[in-house]
Amino acid sequence: MSNTQVVIQSLPEDQLSVDNYAVQSTPMPSAGDGEVLCETLALTVGAGQRAGLQGSASYAGAPKSGVLMNGSAASRVVESNAEGVNVGDIVTCPAGWQAFSVHKASEVTVVPAGGDPAHYLGVLGTNGLTAYFGLLDLGEPKAGDTVLVSAAAGSVGHIVGQIAKLKGCTVVGTAGTDEKCHALMDQLGFDRTINYKDPDFRNAFKEACGDGIDIYFDNTGGDILGAALRRMKTHGRIVCCGVVSQYDTSTPAPGPRGIPGLLVNNRVRMEGFLVFDYADQYGDARTTMRGWIDSGELVPLQDEFEGLENAPAAFVDMLAGGNLGTRIIRVAS
Amino acid sequence: MSNTQVVIQSLPEDQLSVDNYAVQSTPMPSAGDGEVLCETLALTVGAGQRAGLQGSASYAGAPKSGVLMNGSAASRVVESNAEGVNVGDIVTCPAGWQAFSVHKASEVTVVPAGGDPAHYLGVLGTNGLTAYFGLLDLGEPKAGDTVLVSAAAGSVGHIVGQIAKLKGCTVVGTAGTDEKCHALMDQLGFDRTINYKDPDFRNAFKEACGDGIDIYFDNTGGDILGAALRRMKTHGRIVCCGVVSQYDTSTPAPGPRGIPGLLVNNRVRMEGFLVFDYADQYGDARTTMRGWIDSGELVPLQDEFEGLENAPAAFVDMLAGGNLGTRIIRVAS
Repeated sequence: MSNTQVVIQSLPEDQLSVDNYAVQSTPMPSAGDGEVLCETLALTVGAGQRAGLQGSASYAGAPKSGVLMNGSAASRVVESNAEGVNVGDIVTCPAGWQAFSVHKASEVTVVPAGGDPAHYLGVLGTNGLTAYFGLLDLGEPKAGDTVLVSAAAGSVGHIVGQIAKLKGCTVVGTAGTDEKCHALMDQLGFDRTINYKDPDFRNAFKEACGDGIDIYFDNTGGDILGAALRRMKTHGRIVCCGVVSQYDTSTPAPGPRGIPGLLVNNRVRMEGFLVFDYADQYGDARTTMRGWIDSGELVPLQDEFEGLENAPAAFVDMLAGGNLGTRIIRVAS
Repeated sequence: MSNTQVVIQSLPEDQLSVDNYAVQSTPMPSAGDGEVLCETLALTVGAGQRAGLQGSASYAGAPKSGVLMNGSAASRVVESNAEGVNVGDIVTCPAGWQAFSVHKASEVTVVPAGGDPAHYLGVLGTNGLTAYFGLLDLGEPKAGDTVLVSAAAGSVGHIVGQIAKLKGCTVVGTAGTDEKCHALMDQLGFDRTINYKDPDFRNAFKEACGDGIDIYFDNTGGDILGAALRRMKTHGRIVCCGVVSQYDTSTPAPGPRGIPGLLVNNRVRMEGFLVFDYADQYGDARTTMRGWIDSGELVPLQDEFEGLENAPAAFVDMLAGGNLGTRIIRVAS
């Protein structure tokens, strides 16, 4: 029995392509003392990993060519030489793109059995927790607030919008295709959407946000941030979560005009965060979100590819905006 | 007996000059029913009034040519037809640049007698209260924090730095002349200063702030904000108070690079405020600050001109950076 790995063959110079990756067969690893052997059930990919491939000023480190592609997995423990982790446990772990991975026990997180393990890569993983803490802790939503979310069809954005609806807010989302916009309204209950590629974006934005924005959950930065700044209500909050509009360039654009003047005039708060700072509250947040999922109030969207060998295609497609919800690659069941 | 007024003769097209103003003699006004007649003791001028003269996107309205120049005064009531305000009371009021002014009782604020009435235009007025609430409420200083203040020799900035020292912080200030920088360190106890006109500003900034900034109290926006963003510590706070670097232009510069990316990576909060939102807490703040002044822990600097006819010169000089502390024009005693 052997392992299968997807490795970085070359670093992308322009747009990432599947040719930047290679699939290889390697010897089956085994767990050493204090270690566990995990079988990958599902992987997820996120835009932040593209920034990592650039070695940009992102918080992610840049992986080198010729090495295993990094990535988070939901896995099943198939061999354990570690206390507290048992064969058969479902865990999340930094497996990378491979069928089997070995980890120290401290590197894996045992998650509750039952339900779809892939949820722990999306709604109950870093993405969903990012939506939860960013919106609730920094955004402070109140019933009746108008909440704008950019990249609203993304893994974080589609959860943000639904939690905002649960809190009684009016929710406006931006996305890059009319199809996504319709899905946000029809499937997830968003009130209004804006296709940011609309040639008449300015008017579309005005129409959707003309009454002002209480909370802007910013996944993109760039032009949407610039437009939102001009529509923030007094004492509005801008939750700075990501800058996906700037990940694909080595010369970031200047910041939006009106900073800091507009913040002063409208007493607006703009705050960046990383979800890892909330690690001690993950358990409670997951319990709350599982309740919403079970009651049908929160619908986690997963956009799935099958097979480890298709991980590069799933990633490239996601970077081109192909995903609706969390991009998942099913590896085993 | 007649009144003396300084009126706007023409709106400035480029830099403001004393020729934009004219002094005129007008009939002595008198108080109607429910009104008070006030004798101006002292006036103050602030950079925000220059923005007002542009009719820019500032929160101040644009005064028209041919009318009385607006401005805040500390005055003595010399005639009263209003309940609750007595002859001899010291008040603050929106007198404008004139020797005598008439106001409805609701337009004046009676302040405690004793001490220098001009303090109510500076340290105990809007400027000092802005420093107090901006630093303490938004900045949340803790002992050991490093606090950077821009326009540190200005009416707000020199108070911010001193309150930060009172809270046990290390204080760095920026100013536009070496003379001001020395005064901040020698007279007010600032730890380090940066002359922002230094040709080697970048290195001077690095030297003064190389260990990172916990709180940046931003009176200027522009390049100093851009430099500060790159030195903010994790969970740092940027208090957005004013944008003096952008008041003298009709085409504001783009915002600083790295917004919002740097806010995310370092979990930085950036928040604008206006002091008027704290009006219900002014009394307590003034009591606290009077205590600090009486004990010598807080030294309010006033930079004084004599005579109403010199108000235009005092204003023009202040816009050129001539003031150290609050610019006051003494009109009567």
